[in-house]
Amino acid sequence: MTITARDNAVFEAGIKLGALYHQFVGSPVSLRTAESLEKAISESISVQPYVKSISVSINRKMIEENLSSFGYTELKGPMLDVDAVIKYPGYEVNVGIAYKDGYPLMFIKEIREA
Amino acid sequence: MTITARDNAVFEAGIKLGALYHQFVGSPVSLRTAESLEKAISESISVQPYVKSISVSINRKMIEENLSSFGYTELKGPMLDVDAVIKYPGYEVNVGIAYKDGYPLMFIKEIREA
Amino acid sequence: MTITARDNAVFEAGIKLGALYHQFVGSPVSLRTAESLEKAISESISVQPYVKSISVSINRKMIEENLSSFGYTELKGPMLDVDAVIKYPGYEVNVGIAYKDGYPLMFIKEIREA
Amino acid sequence: MTITARDNAVFEAGIKLGALYHQFVGSPVSLRTAESLEKAISESISVQPYVKSISVSINRKMIEENLSSFGYTELKGPMLDVDAVIKYPGYEVNVGIAYKDGYPLMFIKEIREA
Repeated sequence: MTITARDNAVFEAGIKLGALYHQFVGSPVSLRTAESLEKAISESISVQPYVKSISVSINRKMIEENLSSFGYTELKGPMLDVDAVIKYPGYEVNVGIAYKDGYPLMFIKEIREA
Repeated sequence: MTITARDNAVFEAGIKLGALYHQFVGSPVSLRTAESLEKAISESISVQPYVKSISVSINRKMIEENLSSFGYTELKGPMLDVDAVIKYPGYEVNVGIAYKDGYPLMFIKEIREA
Repeated sequence: MTITARDNAVFEAGIKLGALYHQFVGSPVSLRTAESLEKAISESISVQPYVKSISVSINRKMIEENLSSFGYTELKGPMLDVDAVIKYPGYEVNVGIAYKDGYPLMFIKEIREA
Repeated sequence: MTITARDNAVFEAGIKLGALYHQFVGSPVSLRTAESLEKAISESISVQPYVKSISVSINRKMIEENLSSFGYTELKGPMLDVDAVIKYPGYEVNVGIAYKDGYPLMFIKEIREA
């Protein structure tokens, strides 16, 4: 079947989420440093091709619950709440990562012509 | 627009390539250990949902050209040649990573009903 | 204070454990693929300078307890049992990673002249 | 041989550099986003035990030389200039990462009683 602009838009969106997750999960983080990590993750992914916008939020309550006796934890998948819009000529794809049913899920929220 | 099975198939394919790249690039590697790294990468990604098949090849010539005086290098994006088939109900998507025009590119090779 | 061969031996040992942990934690893994991941991790770290020997074991029971409904999980720090010997001219340092008191701890087991 | 506080101080310093390198190398980066990545890396490592201070600088000239046609690159080892002080009861260890002789080298700068 012919590969369409829509296919490429959705494919690029998937790449970004997989990259974000496996690049940054594991990073040491605390309540004090969560904000700079959120900013670095969103800016880092935003330089990749076709990223129109991205917001990254790290769940503070989960950080707190996971703090070691040394006062920090590591970024874990379930802590991530991500919303990103990928724009490929002709299409915008809105995707996200969210914690649902016990897992950090990646999913397509909306596809629109643009 | 309604999100289709085809969209989800392509999205999942993108996730796998982004994950593979950012999880394993940076791993120390030499000519002697390239094979075990290839096997671990392909098996690791193969346990994720919807992966029908995957093959990973690390360019030996590039390893050789990049060897440090200590006799090893790190896995770099351009060294990767990946071919993967993602199967989502109704569709099979064949995607890959290959070195083209100076970059490690991720691309859709084929989409078929299945 | 003068930096000694012993200091460098211990420093190199620390580098290897930090590298191993942050390179491979997060890798998708299942009971079926744990062995190839163990082998790739130990071979990957073994190519780095001053590594005399290394063994990596991934806790199968923890994999099982962490399996998602998709039949896999991600390599987590607590799953790792690592034993490594770093040899720097004049000294051998035996270090490890093990799960103790709820955390994956990195520690020096023994330092010997060699 | 008895493991001393000095050994542990140096060991912890090695762990931090290995962790930093393998967690963040590979992150997409551009001239515009280098600053937020530097800040996130230094803050992330600073939450780990025994880190007294750390500064991370990403070489802007190397970013520029490595920019893809998409206007970004990935953080590579040679781009890193790191200076960190690890404080373990009784000792302070000053370590760094710097680009020398074609490689990103990790080394001990100074050990002092403290």
